[in-house]
Amino acid sequence: MKYYEYDSDDKIAALATPWGESAIAVIRTTGQGCIEALSAAFCGRKSLSKAGPNSMSYGTLKDPKTGKKIDEIIAGVFKQPRSYTGQDMVEIFCHGSMAGIAEILKMLRSIGFRDAKPGEFTLRAFLNNKMDLTRAEAVNEIVKSKSVKGMDIALQKLSGALFNRIDFVKNQVAETLAEIELQLDYPEDEADPEASLNIKKIEKSLAMLKELSATYKVGKVIRDGVSVVLAGKTNAGKSSLFNLFNKTERSIVSESHGTTRDYIEAFLLIGNIPVKLYDTAGLRDFDNSVEEIGIKKSIEIMEKSDIILYLVDGNAGLDNDDVSRMNLIDANKLIKIWNKADIALKNSPDDFINISAITGEGFKELEAEIEKRIGAEKIEIDDAVIIDSERQKNLIDEAVKSLSSSLVSINENIPLDLIAVDIKEALDILGEITGEVTSSDILEIMFSKFCVGK
Amino acid sequence: MKYYEYDSDDKIAALATPWGESAIAVIRTTGQGCIEALSAAFCGRKSLSKAGPNSMSYGTLKDPKTGKKIDEIIAGVFKQPRSYTGQDMVEIFCHGSMAGIAEILKMLRSIGFRDAKPGEFTLRAFLNNKMDLTRAEAVNEIVKSKSVKGMDIALQKLSGALFNRIDFVKNQVAETLAEIELQLDYPEDEADPEASLNIKKIEKSLAMLKELSATYKVGKVIRDGVSVVLAGKTNAGKSSLFNLFNKTERSIVSESHGTTRDYIEAFLLIGNIPVKLYDTAGLRDFDNSVEEIGIKKSIEIMEKSDIILYLVDGNAGLDNDDVSRMNLIDANKLIKIWNKADIALKNSPDDFINISAITGEGFKELEAEIEKRIGAEKIEIDDAVIIDSERQKNLIDEAVKSLSSSLVSINENIPLDLIAVDIKEALDILGEITGEVTSSDILEIMFSKFCVGK
Repeated sequence: MKYYEYDSDDKIAALATPWGESAIAVIRTTGQGCIEALSAAFCGRKSLSKAGPNSMSYGTLKDPKTGKKIDEIIAGVFKQPRSYTGQDMVEIFCHGSMAGIAEILKMLRSIGFRDAKPGEFTLRAFLNNKMDLTRAEAVNEIVKSKSVKGMDIALQKLSGALFNRIDFVKNQVAETLAEIELQLDYPEDEADPEASLNIKKIEKSLAMLKELSATYKVGKVIRDGVSVVLAGKTNAGKSSLFNLFNKTERSIVSESHGTTRDYIEAFLLIGNIPVKLYDTAGLRDFDNSVEEIGIKKSIEIMEKSDIILYLVDGNAGLDNDDVSRMNLIDANKLIKIWNKADIALKNSPDDFINISAITGEGFKELEAEIEKRIGAEKIEIDDAVIIDSERQKNLIDEAVKSLSSSLVSINENIPLDLIAVDIKEALDILGEITGEVTSSDILEIMFSKFCVGK
Repeated sequence: MKYYEYDSDDKIAALATPWGESAIAVIRTTGQGCIEALSAAFCGRKSLSKAGPNSMSYGTLKDPKTGKKIDEIIAGVFKQPRSYTGQDMVEIFCHGSMAGIAEILKMLRSIGFRDAKPGEFTLRAFLNNKMDLTRAEAVNEIVKSKSVKGMDIALQKLSGALFNRIDFVKNQVAETLAEIELQLDYPEDEADPEASLNIKKIEKSLAMLKELSATYKVGKVIRDGVSVVLAGKTNAGKSSLFNLFNKTERSIVSESHGTTRDYIEAFLLIGNIPVKLYDTAGLRDFDNSVEEIGIKKSIEIMEKSDIILYLVDGNAGLDNDDVSRMNLIDANKLIKIWNKADIALKNSPDDFINISAITGEGFKELEAEIEKRIGAEKIEIDDAVIIDSERQKNLIDEAVKSLSSSLVSINENIPLDLIAVDIKEALDILGEITGEVTSSDILEIMFSKFCVGK
């Protein structure tokens, strides 16, 4: 099988850890003859080619052509088929020196390794039947996960939870198809009352697939996060509240886009859901803005956002401007905040949350309200399988379409051989999800999204 | 022994790879009971506590308190004393997911691991006699090395080249001291002509130490790199030449300090020596500058630099301004460049290198001249031991002082017991280099410069 026009068993190598100075770096290699090739470059107590499976050997990596020492390393040896890729593998644990890493990769190229493409190790695992496509996608989801919840969901898929469900549905559908084919072969049984059994299996399959498809909404939220925007007039305290969010331990990555100055973005976890928090304070405010582009960007961010926190300066109180602006916002998105509660001269209307962005008063209530709006408390993963891959969602929806169409046909007494077409189509689509049926184009698109070295 | 007020055998853990999304991350753990502690969190085909030395086991990492799955990992087990630290070690090879790494570290803390301090793994290796201080320093030098040459020098020290040399000198000095002490115990042998042998050993030691000390100059260049500044009038083509340098494969890291705009810096390798190239083109030029600070910064960079490339626009020719500016520059630092050779209307004076920053003409000659100035061709490491640690250099110089003083004393027939004081001092200093004699303060200063996880 070919991928990116390459063999799937030649020797490949890639840095599997981030590029940077660190204690340890890992360079992964796999492919036919990779242990022997590295054995020629390795000087240890015994030859790498004699190392046992799943063993680590300490030694010196040398350029086999010049004999020049490159680094002192630990070589981890895995033997096929008991390895990640299903092929022989050597993982080089070397010093995290950028000069050293570059030199090792150069040496590897000189002895017949080529640079691995993104996801090529996992692709080989798939091609060698070490994992189906749902598990392969889960590997990438794990690496990309930004929250523990996202990680949990992906781990569940890695353990085969999604595969098992799809496989169960596939068997139901396949059995139905077999029954139909039997009836087509022996038409005398056509009036057999047992033929109604088919529908139950299809119905059950449909219900399971629809349930899976419905989890995508939650899955996407966990994958991409929810966007929350701070809005309100100048001096309402947007920047103070932004800073308060960032001060909590919920803030995991915070970066200010100082260059564009259009907005500031922070990355938080609220109720275990990743949240992108935007402060548009850097923009000219609505009222005194002369800059058209600024206003446009601000409105764009608000429109795309899931939640808008509208701040009112509790000291200045609510005015018509605030009211008319809040009226422009979708009520489901809007959370009204009465800020400066510590010094507020005026009482807040009932539907406002009282907070002080300076003292932190009321902050917990605000977080709880955001969690509620996100629906975080509803996201219970436990045993549920949650999909967050668009590919999977689209295929499941296509399978639902084919199966629904077959049900309609059955009810309308359409000839069985026509019904069989829909059902076969559904089977093929289900096979695409797990990768039994697949094209190299799909593989290329899918694995190119992976990290190099994975 | 204590370090940072901690035990040296409690359980520690650290991420040993850079913090970022990647295929694989490595979390290192060591300390008494670390295998057993991790065994409780690991579910594999067999218990981690039964894993053999230098083995890798595939399994699931769980929170032992809640049973919650955290990641699927490979656990590398090393048993004391055959490990990096000399203690039991478990290296966790997990998915390079930031959420997952954070979760594993959190779990490790909950089961009694504490976060390792910078260099604490190597410190333990030193404390457990796995390596002397010269080798420990070499570990850090390897990680920090920015060129293959720097890496080679550090590897040589890791293999004990510096230790062996210091050890040889130490033995020579110790033998001399023993002879002196013998003579002090049996004064009747005082006039023994063999006493003159002492001087030969000391003389040899002195010569070896002085030779080592002299390598520091080269070592420092390889460690820190050489700074090269582009100078010349506006339109002389400084930016074009800067870009030309960056386009070559010599450029390994190039970053523009767009925020300060004071200067642009690039990191190159010329003749295997790291070079920091500065383009001050972002600054107002000398002539039409109104901004005092700009000029000051430019002069400051030029003064600190090792080489200044002065560009003259070959089309416009040399004028008095250029001449007077070049006269301000130390001739040893100055390389004169006649740019725009492809379109130059005027011929260059003899001492100029003709180049075209646009076509690349003459670029090789320029590089060769820079290499010559750096003295790169003189830097042959082969079997020579080169030191680049200031600590080592200072101690070696101190030992040279003590030994020289003892030689003077011997020549002046100063009483042997006084001479012995100098020689003992030299012995102690040599012991400090390898770490036989050392204080916790020195260890703290030294290891705090390491990466975490090393």
